[in-house]
Amino acid sequence: MSMKFEGRDILSIKDFSVKEIMHILKTAKKMVPAAKGERRDESLRGKVLATIFFEPSTRTRLSFESAMSRLGGRAIGMADPEASSLKKGETLADTIKMAESYADVTVLRHHHMGAARLAANFSAKPIINGGDGAGQHPTQTMLDLFTIWTEKGKIEGQKVALVGDLKYGRTAHSLSYALSLFGAKLYFVAPPTLQMPKEVVDDAKVGKVRPKLTGDLNDVIGKVDVLYVTRIQKERFPDPQEYQRVAGLYKVDVGLLEEAKKDLIVMHPLPRVNEIHPSVDGTHHARYFEQAFNGVPVRMALLALILGAVE
Amino acid sequence: MSMKFEGRDILSIKDFSVKEIMHILKTAKKMVPAAKGERRDESLRGKVLATIFFEPSTRTRLSFESAMSRLGGRAIGMADPEASSLKKGETLADTIKMAESYADVTVLRHHHMGAARLAANFSAKPIINGGDGAGQHPTQTMLDLFTIWTEKGKIEGQKVALVGDLKYGRTAHSLSYALSLFGAKLYFVAPPTLQMPKEVVDDAKVGKVRPKLTGDLNDVIGKVDVLYVTRIQKERFPDPQEYQRVAGLYKVDVGLLEEAKKDLIVMHPLPRVNEIHPSVDGTHHARYFEQAFNGVPVRMALLALILGAVE
Amino acid sequence: MSMKFEGRDILSIKDFSVKEIMHILKTAKKMVPAAKGERRDESLRGKVLATIFFEPSTRTRLSFESAMSRLGGRAIGMADPEASSLKKGETLADTIKMAESYADVTVLRHHHMGAARLAANFSAKPIINGGDGAGQHPTQTMLDLFTIWTEKGKIEGQKVALVGDLKYGRTAHSLSYALSLFGAKLYFVAPPTLQMPKEVVDDAKVGKVRPKLTGDLNDVIGKVDVLYVTRIQKERFPDPQEYQRVAGLYKVDVGLLEEAKKDLIVMHPLPRVNEIHPSVDGTHHARYFEQAFNGVPVRMALLALILGAVE
Repeated sequence: MSMKFEGRDILSIKDFSVKEIMHILKTAKKMVPAAKGERRDESLRGKVLATIFFEPSTRTRLSFESAMSRLGGRAIGMADPEASSLKKGETLADTIKMAESYADVTVLRHHHMGAARLAANFSAKPIINGGDGAGQHPTQTMLDLFTIWTEKGKIEGQKVALVGDLKYGRTAHSLSYALSLFGAKLYFVAPPTLQMPKEVVDDAKVGKVRPKLTGDLNDVIGKVDVLYVTRIQKERFPDPQEYQRVAGLYKVDVGLLEEAKKDLIVMHPLPRVNEIHPSVDGTHHARYFEQAFNGVPVRMALLALILGAVE
Repeated sequence: MSMKFEGRDILSIKDFSVKEIMHILKTAKKMVPAAKGERRDESLRGKVLATIFFEPSTRTRLSFESAMSRLGGRAIGMADPEASSLKKGETLADTIKMAESYADVTVLRHHHMGAARLAANFSAKPIINGGDGAGQHPTQTMLDLFTIWTEKGKIEGQKVALVGDLKYGRTAHSLSYALSLFGAKLYFVAPPTLQMPKEVVDDAKVGKVRPKLTGDLNDVIGKVDVLYVTRIQKERFPDPQEYQRVAGLYKVDVGLLEEAKKDLIVMHPLPRVNEIHPSVDGTHHARYFEQAFNGVPVRMALLALILGAVE
Repeated sequence: MSMKFEGRDILSIKDFSVKEIMHILKTAKKMVPAAKGERRDESLRGKVLATIFFEPSTRTRLSFESAMSRLGGRAIGMADPEASSLKKGETLADTIKMAESYADVTVLRHHHMGAARLAANFSAKPIINGGDGAGQHPTQTMLDLFTIWTEKGKIEGQKVALVGDLKYGRTAHSLSYALSLFGAKLYFVAPPTLQMPKEVVDDAKVGKVRPKLTGDLNDVIGKVDVLYVTRIQKERFPDPQEYQRVAGLYKVDVGLLEEAKKDLIVMHPLPRVNEIHPSVDGTHHARYFEQAFNGVPVRMALLALILGAVE
C-alpha cells in the first residue's frame, strides 16, 4: 500500500495507520533544524494557511503560524468569533467555504465535537482539526507521539501513565488510543469520578496489552517510562474543597520523582496550572517544553505533506 | 488618455472610468492562477499592507491578507478598536499617519461615511476604502463586476436584479451605479420601506436604461441574467413579525429558481443568513462562493496596480 | 571593548553604553531605505518574532511587525490576554517558554515593572522589553534618541525640555536618563504634582549638567532645541476641573511656538490627545510623525543585531 498525503484532511488520529503516523514522525524529524530557525526551508513559499478558531487556543494557533512561517508560507486568520461574520449568523459551512477561497489549507478549532469532519465535507481543500470540543485533536496526539519516539527511540513497549482528568480530557483519549495502537503499555491514573470513559478504555484495547486503571499515582510512579500529566479542571467539581483534595493527590513534584525510574520523562500538553511544580522544570525528567516545541516540526511535516511539498 | 494607477487611492467606484475598471478586471483575471496558489507571484515582496479596521469585516480583511500573501507581501493590522490607541482618544488622522509610517498602503474600514476620503487627505500613501458606513465599498463593487464579467463574458446588456434591503445596503448602491455605467439593465426588487433611495436611483440613470422598481421577486425572476441578493437586517424592523413576513417574500430557494432562466447566476456579498437556502448551493445557478474567491484576484490587481508592480 | 549584540536581551536603556547605543543608531540609519520600502532587505528571511502583549500597544506591536516584514521575517503573536492561555492561569515563565519554542526572539509588553527582566531569566532566546508597566521601554528611548540625532546631527549639548506628566510617564524617565548620558541639557516642565520623581532626577545627573525643574513652559520655550511632549492623563486627577486647568497650561499650539527657536523640533511618543494642537502638524517644528516612523528602522536594527544578521 502506497501512502498518499497530498490533499488529505487531518481529522482524527484514528484515520491513520501506524505506518502513516511513522512516516509523519520521520518527516517531522527532518523538519527540526528548520523549526529551530537553523536551516532555511521555503517549501511552502506562496502557500496560505487559514486559522479559523471558534475558541481560543494560543499554543495551537501560534505553533501552526510558526510552522507555516518556518516553511516560507503565510498564515491568515480569524481568532475572535465575536468580531466576525459568525456574529452575523453565518453557518460553519459558509465560514469554511470562505476560508477555502482565501487559503490552501484550513485549521479549524471548534467547541463542538464533529465540527472538523463536518467542515471537511464542505471543503474541497484540506481541513486540519485543531481540536473539536470533546472530540479529537490529532496534531496534539502526533506531537505527543513524536516526543516519546524521539526521547525514547521507540513507542512500542513503553510504559506510559496518563494522569489527571481522564474523563473529560480530549488529549488523553486520543493519545491512549494511539499509544495502544503502537504497542505501549498504559496506566490510567485518576480519581474514580475522573477515570477514563469505558469506550476509551475499550478503544485502547486495540493493542495487545490491556491498560491498567488505578487511583493511586504512587502505585505506578516507580514502574513507568513516561508520565503524561493533564490538567484537572476546577469547574468539574461542585465542591471546591473536593477539588483541592483531588488536585493535591495528583500533583507532580520533585518528592514524587524520587520514586521514579532514572529515565522517566514527564510530559504535559500545557498550559499547566498546578499539576506540575515548577521545581520539576530543572530536573532531567521534564520534557513538556520540548514537547511544546515539537508542535512546530510535527505541524510543518503535516502541512508540507498535505500540500504536496514533500512526499 | 493614459491610465495612472500607481500611488492612487481607491475611495469610491465613482472615481473610476469604465476603461479604468476594465483594466483592473483584466489585471485581476491574470492574477487568478496566483490567487489559487497554482502559480507563484512575488511582485510585492518586501511590501507591507496595513489593515485598519474600526469595525469587523472578516471577509474583507482576510481576502486582503490573502491577496497580499499571494503576491509575496505582508499584512500588519489593527482589528480591535477596543484594544488600541483609539481607546486613548486618538484622531483618525493620527491613526492613518501611524499606518502610513509602517506600511506602503492602508485599507481602512470605518463606520462613518466619508472616513476613507478624509483619511486620504491626511496620507501621502494610498488609502483603500474597505467600507465606510453607509458610504462606499469600491473593492466589493469591483469583485462583483469581475464576477459578472467572467461568468457572462460582458456586463453591458445584462439584466441584473438587486434584491433585498436596497435602502440601507451600501453594496447595492455602489453596484447599481457601476452596473448602470457599464450599460446593464437594472431591476430593484424590495419592499416599499426598503426600496432604493431616490438619489441612488438617479445615480443609476448614468447608463442608457432606466432601472425598474418592483416589490415582487416573481415579476422578474424569469427575465434576469443575474440575481444579486443582499441581507435584510432584522434591526431595520420595529416589529419582528413584519421582518419575518418581508424576509420570507425575498427568500431564494430551488422552488423560485425553477422559474429562472437556465443561465441565471445567483450572487450574494456574504455572509448570508436566510436569504438564500443552502439547497441553492448545489445548483448550477450559485456563484456566491466564486464571487467570494474573486475578492482575492481583484484585490491582488488593485494592490499590484497602486504599488506600481504592474501597469 | 568589542561590542556583542547577537543573542542579547533588550531590557533597559541602562544596559547599554553610549558607544553601543550609537552603534544601534548608526545601524538604524542604514535601515531607513528598507524601512520605507524603497530597498529590499531579506536579512531575517526564515526568522520568526513572537509578540506577546499582555496589554495593548498598537504602535509598538505594528512597528515591530513592520520591522520584521521589512527584513523578510515573520511575526506571530498573542495580543489578547483574555483569549489566551493566560486566562487558564499560566505563569509568565511558561508563556515565555512557549514563545521561545515558536520564535527566534520575543517582544514582551506587560503591565508589571520588571516583567521583561524576569522573562529573560526564563528564556534562552533574546527578550525585547516592549514596555513593562512603570518600568522601561528601551526601544522607545532608542527611537527618541535616533530622532534627535538624525534631526540635530548630535545629541550632546542639545537643550531638551520634557513636558507633561513626568511623574508617571515611563517614556520621560528612560529618555531623561539617556539624554543625560549623551550630554544633553535637560528641562523638566511639569506641575508640582506631576514633576519628575527624585530618583529619576538623580539618574539624570549621570551627565555633566544638572537638569532644571520648572512648572512654567513659557520659561523654557525660547531656550530649547527639542520640546518633548507627553500625555497628561485625566485619570491622575481626582478633580476634572483641575485636570482641565493643568492640561491647558501645557498645551502646545502655534501661538506658543512663536516664542520658540527657529529650529526647535516638537516630539511626542503618540498617541496624543490634546497636548499638541493639530495646527502644529503643518509647521516646520513638528517631528512626531517622523519619530513614529523611526520606530521601524530602529527596531529593524535591533532585530538584525540581536539575531546576528548584522554586526
